[in-house]
This record gives sequence, structure tokens and C-alpha cells, in this order.
Amino acid sequence: MGEARIFEHAVRVPYAHVDKMGFVYYANYLVYFEMARAEMLRQAGVPYPSLEEKGVFLPVVESFCEYLKPAAYDDLLVTRLQCSRKGARLHIEYDTRRTVSGTRGPLAEPERIVNGYTDHVCLSRDGKVLKPITELLRLMDSDG
Amino acid sequence: MGEARIFEHAVRVPYAHVDKMGFVYYANYLVYFEMARAEMLRQAGVPYPSLEEKGVFLPVVESFCEYLKPAAYDDLLVTRLQCSRKGARLHIEYDTRRTVSGTRGPLAEPERIVNGYTDHVCLSRDGKVLKPITELLRLMDSDG
Amino acid sequence: MGEARIFEHAVRVPYAHVDKMGFVYYANYLVYFEMARAEMLRQAGVPYPSLEEKGVFLPVVESFCEYLKPAAYDDLLVTRLQCSRKGARLHIEYDTRRTVSGTRGPLAEPERIVNGYTDHVCLSRDGKVLKPITELLRLMDSDG
Amino acid sequence: MGEARIFEHAVRVPYAHVDKMGFVYYANYLVYFEMARAEMLRQAGVPYPSLEEKGVFLPVVESFCEYLKPAAYDDLLVTRLQCSRKGARLHIEYDTRRTVSGTRGPLAEPERIVNGYTDHVCLSRDGKVLKPITELLRLMDSDG
Repeated sequence: MGEARIFEHAVRVPYAHVDKMGFVYYANYLVYFEMARAEMLRQAGVPYPSLEEKGVFLPVVESFCEYLKPAAYDDLLVTRLQCSRKGARLHIEYDTRRTVSGTRGPLAEPERIVNGYTDHVCLSRDGKVLKPITELLRLMDSDG
Repeated sequence: MGEARIFEHAVRVPYAHVDKMGFVYYANYLVYFEMARAEMLRQAGVPYPSLEEKGVFLPVVESFCEYLKPAAYDDLLVTRLQCSRKGARLHIEYDTRRTVSGTRGPLAEPERIVNGYTDHVCLSRDGKVLKPITELLRLMDSDG
Repeated sequence: MGEARIFEHAVRVPYAHVDKMGFVYYANYLVYFEMARAEMLRQAGVPYPSLEEKGVFLPVVESFCEYLKPAAYDDLLVTRLQCSRKGARLHIEYDTRRTVSGTRGPLAEPERIVNGYTDHVCLSRDGKVLKPITELLRLMDSDG
Repeated sequence: MGEARIFEHAVRVPYAHVDKMGFVYYANYLVYFEMARAEMLRQAGVPYPSLEEKGVFLPVVESFCEYLKPAAYDDLLVTRLQCSRKGARLHIEYDTRRTVSGTRGPLAEPERIVNGYTDHVCLSRDGKVLKPITELLRLMDSDG
């Protein structure tokens, strides 16, 4: 039985990502998820560019987001993510919280903003489904 | 019992939306969904700016996408959408297909690219949940 | 001496592109410029994907925007563009106007929103500067 | 005579920002400029949200980019910026360099990727031109 491995990634909300209600536009959370995912792969010793060089691609086949609270310009959002296996897929869960508010400053208690998941398959350059490579298996099995 | 009302919206994939695999980056489908949604509201006689002027907001509380096939630069993607009611929520389903390929030209048979949904609540400016206004109820009940 | 060739492209401003002041975020005009450029190339018989297949790339080497008036959600923006030659470069000028306002409806007199330009060079896949192909030369020389 | 004040901001290029040539899409540099600008204002003691609360807005009235070299996925890009006064305008110059390559690792010599500028005016909420506030004047006069 492995030890849970949890990764974190922080992003300061830029003006570019905020809509006219003053809130982060909903599609941008998928970008934050991707940034967090890339950071996790780097820390796990398999930066995504090196995967692609080996001919391994990890396209998203499914995404889900639940928007709990709006985030605002200049908030600091921290995304925690956790990997697991879902059949042949890599299943990644995300939990994005506000730790610093652009207007109220650092928060005593981080606020839950969005949670969601993405599912990925391992593909070769010509689109064949591959068995996940060792480093990815390690990530996928890290929580059980 | 109402008649099903289906709306369509087309978008030509710009270079800005295509990633280095040559495919539409996954977050952009949520943008296409939003464009289709706005067009639907306009056609239903409740353009979103007029809703906001009345103090009615329709934030997304949940989103889901299933990525079936990648789309490429200069493809013409047509999104059909259909509304229904899900408790107090407005539930919108999207079916995005490629009708013209940027490299192969018009397709005899449109190809399914992505399907998904978004859920929305009606909110007042100060964040109170509102009963959906008549025009929205009509959309929500349009399929049965 | 050639005849001026002017191309037009319209875009309905999506929620995704509007910032918290309620205005189109400034980087998005470069996306609208690209969409208009792609449409121009298609109408000129050299759709960009076909250029890339021939191994001709048109990267931007310079961009400039002057923001005259803000545009808002649901505005209809029409971009006119015009090509010319600037040494070995393809020089494209853009003039983006609001023809329909999201809140005020169709405008008797279109309003100037942004103007700007982009400069491009013709590159081969391995980054060598190429002599522009005939179809591009025709565009470049169209206004004189 | 003041001391030159130079600010820096780093960004790791996400997949979302890379086009099918494998390069950062040209509009994204304006987003990086904005992120760097926000960081500068924060460090100068005038975070942008606090400006807006005081009723001071800094819309961009002009932008310019010169694209020297393409940047790629997972590159680390560092933007240095410097403010000055240009009549009533705040003039900001940006110099974006690659310090770490996504594929080659840390670079002995940072590579120049893009340089550019943005010009801003100080506006009140209702669109009147304001005299720059003290903190901004200090930034504007910092290099002379």
C-alpha cells in the first residue's frame, strides 16, 4: 500500500481571466488544472515535454468542474491534485481554494472555490492507446 | 407538453485555440458552449445583457465535457444545444460536431467531437437564488 | 497598378473576452485580427492550412494596437483589413468597428474601437526566410 | 534624480498558450505583460484592486510587441519592466526572456523572446482623464 501523494500549485488570478461580473471565467479553471498537472508531472520526474519526446501523449478524455464560489481578480488560488487509476485511465482530482483574497488579503481559512477532475489516456503519436509508463503508474497508484 | 427546441451555433477554429498537438485545447470547448448559449438566449428573446439589466445572472455551477475526437485548426464546429430543468437549475446539453474540416473540406457525415453539459442557477445581483423568469422556464421546459 | 482589396470579418464578443470593467480584454483584439487574417487568406485562395502544408509559415514579427474606445459583451465587431508590402514583410492593417451594440442594438454610425497592424515574414518549416509565394505577393501588392 | 526601478515577473508557459507550431501564441505576451504589470503595482504598494477601489482605472490605450524568437511549452519566461512618463500617459516597457527551456533546461545566457510596451491613461469610473496619483507618478519618474 502506497502513501498518498498530493501536489499543489498556486496561481494569482490575472485581469485576463476575470469576466464582467468580476469573477474568474469558468473555462479558466481548466487552464489552472493543466498548470497544476504539468507541475505535478515535473515534480514526479516526468515533465510533459519529456513524455512527448518519448512519444507518449496524455490527452484529456473527460473533464468535470463544480463551481462552489466565485474567485476574483488578484486572488491567490491554490490547486491541490491527486491521481488515481480508473481502468486504463489516469484520473486526476483537483481542489482549488482561495488562500489570499485580492481585496481582503490572506485568509485565516482557505475558501473552496472549485473542485473537479480530468481523465486521461496514454496515446502514442499515431493515436494508439498505450499501457501507462512506470512513472505514471506510480502516480496512479500513489493513493492506494 | 412542449416541442423540443434545438439551437445551433457554428465556430471556425482559430489558431489561438489550437495546441501544439494541432488540436483544440480542451478549455476552449467551454468557450464554444458559452457562445452557443448566448446565441440561444438571443434567439429565445432574452439576450444575456438584457437579463443582467433586469438583475438576473446565470452563473455556471457545474460543467462536464467528454472529448470524443480532436478538432483541428480551421475546422468548422457546429454546437447543438438543448435545455431542460434539473430541479431549480437550468441544464444545458451540448453536442459539438465537425461539419467542415480545415484540411479535408466539407464532410459528408459530421463527426462528433465533444459533448457535455453546463448547469446554471438564476441569481440576483447580490447572490440570492431567484425563481427562473418566464422566458427561461419556457426554454427549460421546451423538451417535454 | 492594382485595385485595393479590403476584407471584412465580424465577431460577436463572447463573455469569455470581457474583463471586469465590462470591456473586451486588450489581448483579444489580436485574436480577432488573426481570425480576420485567416478569413482573408481563405478568400484569397490560400487558406492558412494549405500554406502550412506547402511548408510556408507566416509568423507575426510585430504587432501594434491603438485602443480608441472600449467594446462590450455582445457587441458585434467588424474588422476590415488591408495588406501591403513592407520590405520583405507582409504588413496587414486592421480597423475594428462596432456595428451593433449588445445593449443599444444596431448603430446608425459604426464606432471605431481599435486599429492596429501586424507584420509577418514567410518562413520555411526550418525557419529560413522565404520569398513570398505568388498568392501572397498578390495580396501584398493589392493596394498599389 | 531617482534610481531606476526594474521589476521582474516569471511565467511557466502552459500548454494552453502554445499553438500548433509549438510556439507561444502571439496574443499571450500581452497577458504576460499584464501579469508583470500587476506584480509591479503590488510591489510598488498600489495593487490594482486598491486603485480601482479608489476609482482609478488604468486602461491600455496602445500596445506594441516585437517578436524576436519563439518561446515553447514549459519554457520559463521572465519579463522585466520599466515605467516612464509619456506626456499624461504611463509608458511601460517590457523585455521578456527565456531563462529555462522546457526541453534544454536552464540557459547559461537568457534568450530575448519579445519586447514591447503598453501605454496607459488614468481614468475615473465615468471615463474622465485623471492626474496620476502620487504612487504612480513615483513609478513614472523612477528612471530619471
